Amino acid sequence: MKTIGYLGPKGTFTKLAVDTAFNDEERRSFTTIPECIDAVDQGKIEIGVVPLENAIEGTVQLTVDYLVHQVRLPVVAEIVVPIQQHLLVRKDFSGELSTLKEVHSHSHAIAQCHQFIHQHLPDANIQFSSSTGKAAELVSESKEPIAAIGNIIAAKEYGLQIVKENIHDYPNNHTRFLVLAQDRSVVSINHPAKLERTTMMITLPSDKSGALHQILSAFAWRKMNLSKIESRPTKTGLGNYFFIIDVDQTYDDVLFPGVKQELEALGCSVDILGTYPVYHLNI
Amino acid sequence: MKTIGYLGPKGTFTKLAVDTAFNDEERRSFTTIPECIDAVDQGKIEIGVVPLENAIEGTVQLTVDYLVHQVRLPVVAEIVVPIQQHLLVRKDFSGELSTLKEVHSHSHAIAQCHQFIHQHLPDANIQFSSSTGKAAELVSESKEPIAAIGNIIAAKEYGLQIVKENIHDYPNNHTRFLVLAQDRSVVSINHPAKLERTTMMITLPSDKSGALHQILSAFAWRKMNLSKIESRPTKTGLGNYFFIIDVDQTYDDVLFPGVKQELEALGCSVDILGTYPVYHLNI
Repeated sequence: MKTIGYLGPKGTFTKLAVDTAFNDEERRSFTTIPECIDAVDQGKIEIGVVPLENAIEGTVQLTVDYLVHQVRLPVVAEIVVPIQQHLLVRKDFSGELSTLKEVHSHSHAIAQCHQFIHQHLPDANIQFSSSTGKAAELVSESKEPIAAIGNIIAAKEYGLQIVKENIHDYPNNHTRFLVLAQDRSVVSINHPAKLERTTMMITLPSDKSGALHQILSAFAWRKMNLSKIESRPTKTGLGNYFFIIDVDQTYDDVLFPGVKQELEALGCSVDILGTYPVYHLNI
Repeated sequence: MKTIGYLGPKGTFTKLAVDTAFNDEERRSFTTIPECIDAVDQGKIEIGVVPLENAIEGTVQLTVDYLVHQVRLPVVAEIVVPIQQHLLVRKDFSGELSTLKEVHSHSHAIAQCHQFIHQHLPDANIQFSSSTGKAAELVSESKEPIAAIGNIIAAKEYGLQIVKENIHDYPNNHTRFLVLAQDRSVVSINHPAKLERTTMMITLPSDKSGALHQILSAFAWRKMNLSKIESRPTKTGLGNYFFIIDVDQTYDDVLFPGVKQELEALGCSVDILGTYPVYHLNI
């Protein structure tokens, strides 16, 4: 039986992504991104799912930095899920929204629903919790007219009703998760993949004007489409950068080795962090 | 009297940045990034300080997205402070670290000190709080042998002792903050600026292979040095991107208008989000 580790606790978006993408594997909740990645690296679990972008709990930078600097595990899939935040109350609540005295959630979830709160709950007291799941738990245990902001899993796990759906400010916001595994054959996701992607890490020899332009030339003349580029400072000091580049095609034996060779000739170091299918899931 | 708004609560890194950079202005704590930005936009406060990168409380993406999509306020300065996490205990604690039963902090701070916790506090129970300040408050009120992870301000605000300094995993990690103001003349920071920077937002007409390379050509042949580039999906749908580009020089009347003109001829839209000094502060 395979075990999937994820950034917990119960009711997080990472758990929602895992439950939507996978079937009957075992699940194990981890308290931090590094702990989850370490567990896969040390063979304690087979698969790890960690947030990469727009996550409520967990930072983008931490996942990338930990994979780059500490534990180089292959990325074997990406899962993209829409961000859907709901207003959750106890099932016996039947009043108007305006009677809600408090709104509990993780500060990032509160921020994502800023306009809704401003318009519909201007007088409610905002209370921060360490996760959306914790907020839902607190509401489920309270006798007061209070609400939590969280996703559909948080509602189910804690027996709450969704009194207002989709209260997030941006309708087209998505969260991205990386699936990590030593052995890619253990990962099976029962959805059609939307596209294939290869993620590369490129480190420049030193800061110099136009270096990035030179790097991108290697992709441009091969007509390789980049869907993401992000510069990150290396942790070895100020002023040194590496780039994370997503190319929307599978690693092959001609184009990618050609790019790598050219960039290395320029003094860059080039690592392939993974070549993997991308799944867009509806929840 | 000017008022500076910041992402609170007490004891956060944003508060530390504000206290280090500014003198005797009034301070007002805000519970979310959008609330702080709105307050500056509506003239309720003169200056807002919000996290941009590597923040413990608050997301990178939220600050950029809110400035791009909702409220276009000028960036008038950037503050960079080193991330220094300490292990905090009550002043009457005098035991060994190994006797600490619990470690409390924001999940991102816990993750930043992953290796220290793993090596020195392997048996301590990890407890998440909604901010590093809340964790320090909880420790200050407890009679148990428990610790918090937080910065020097959290220690001072809650009367805790630093039992172990600099327990963060990466020594060269920094947090970046943006200073926002309608009127740049109200902002005075009593430190020498390290460099000048201009932040631009460039939106592509549509996804096409090599478009980014073409954009960077406009900077490269002018020998304009880019210190950061990040692609972000627009919130209008999947597959549309904009780029945030940092150029390490002040906006001028020749180079920047030239870049803008060329890029607009290619069908891009170009916005200047700010041209401002960057302050590196020691805390």
